Amino acid sequence: MFIMDNRAIGVFDSGLGGLTVVKELQKILPKESIIYFGDTGRVPYGSKSDATISKYVSEIFGFLSEKNVKAVVSACGTASSVIMKQNLLPKEELFTGVVVPACLAALEKTKNRRIGIIGTKATVNSGAYAEFINRMADDVEVFSLACPLFVPLVENGMFDEGNEITSLSVKQYLSYFKDKNIDTLILGCTHYPLLSSFISKEMGDGVTLIDSGKETANLIKKMLEKNDMLSEEAEASYEYYVSDSIEDFSENGERFLGRKIKENLYKKVF
Amino acid sequence: MFIMDNRAIGVFDSGLGGLTVVKELQKILPKESIIYFGDTGRVPYGSKSDATISKYVSEIFGFLSEKNVKAVVSACGTASSVIMKQNLLPKEELFTGVVVPACLAALEKTKNRRIGIIGTKATVNSGAYAEFINRMADDVEVFSLACPLFVPLVENGMFDEGNEITSLSVKQYLSYFKDKNIDTLILGCTHYPLLSSFISKEMGDGVTLIDSGKETANLIKKMLEKNDMLSEEAEASYEYYVSDSIEDFSENGERFLGRKIKENLYKKVF
Repeated sequence: MFIMDNRAIGVFDSGLGGLTVVKELQKILPKESIIYFGDTGRVPYGSKSDATISKYVSEIFGFLSEKNVKAVVSACGTASSVIMKQNLLPKEELFTGVVVPACLAALEKTKNRRIGIIGTKATVNSGAYAEFINRMADDVEVFSLACPLFVPLVENGMFDEGNEITSLSVKQYLSYFKDKNIDTLILGCTHYPLLSSFISKEMGDGVTLIDSGKETANLIKKMLEKNDMLSEEAEASYEYYVSDSIEDFSENGERFLGRKIKENLYKKVF
Repeated sequence: MFIMDNRAIGVFDSGLGGLTVVKELQKILPKESIIYFGDTGRVPYGSKSDATISKYVSEIFGFLSEKNVKAVVSACGTASSVIMKQNLLPKEELFTGVVVPACLAALEKTKNRRIGIIGTKATVNSGAYAEFINRMADDVEVFSLACPLFVPLVENGMFDEGNEITSLSVKQYLSYFKDKNIDTLILGCTHYPLLSSFISKEMGDGVTLIDSGKETANLIKKMLEKNDMLSEEAEASYEYYVSDSIEDFSENGERFLGRKIKENLYKKVF
């Protein structure tokens, strides 16, 4: 029996970062429609508490369910970490966050069994990445570091090559890893791939960067295949919702995605 | 007739910055009780739209009214700018934002009639400071600059002397003023006085910095005197409310205020 499901995939993030997942999905699953929600009215999540983030996530789960999506992707490292710790789930949709796919990819890549994780304060405090890795492999040593300035840098569009403030910030934060001898670094926040040229320059060739957005897109593809839920639409459609002004978002978003989004961009406030 | 009013003054901000007003009030009006609200669950305001900020402000006005304060101070440059543009006001309490007192102080100080303003994106876009100054004095030239990274720097506690990232950020932003020949600079966001040592180093001795928090405290004192509403309590009480976790706030808040706040710190979510 051949089943298909043309409903959209719902993807959400605190702001711009989750577009790294969207970009990857558009590449590997060009027939899948996507409904994106960026919580730009309340960004950033990473400096906020579990209780606050849980409340925001529940509201977003409800919104995406109303939109009748077939799967929900938490494309936010912070939200995904809190979701794991608090055992939150959407009502009935397929679900993945970014923690599990990123950790699985890192475990596959590491040779010396020393993995680094960078994320927001809330992500690092949750311990979700480290816990999951050590549940899968107790011989791996994990080093976690919060980089609270990275999200504001990205949200303010300061990711052009050579940006001095971003260079210095990346250099200072990552000096923590100098003596840790890791060979794999998880970008535990979907904003961070926008800084990956800065990060890889600092970490050097010996360290593989794990882009949690990319890994998450790969996993959702497998999940849809396994459940015979791939779309067979000739043309995918994209809708974007944000909880603040659409102007700023469309500008930085288009710059990052490399395609127009403004005509499909709407406001949704809770 | 001698009237007094022992009710508290309500002060609010998007986060930590408004404590610059609280600190000043505690110094010049030691008998006044204060109820502070920091919207840490939704900070920062400065990158958000007028509609979003108006909604947040109305909720906070309601909360402070319920607390039966005698006066409301918008200790947030962004909120104050939007309040002016949108003609928002609390129900019946005395009210001031930070825009008017800061502009009046700048007009008093400037000799060469060239005034600079730094603030968040929303504040600069609103044009509230520049408009008010030019309504009061049309011979003054005003130069406005958004410094979107300053609030994240402060909220992340990066205001210790010599912090390199903060130094570089301040240097880069303020280079805009190099050829503007201003003699007065309004710190149009109450977070910025926490960076004033960086800012004055960059601007040099010839430029007077206007601390909008300090000027606002002075104005509220005058308003209470004029309305015979000063408190005669022997001991003032202080209550602090935040919309996110109290831990982070109490740490940075105590560091800044130089007094304990944790035992009087509560959570208030909208």
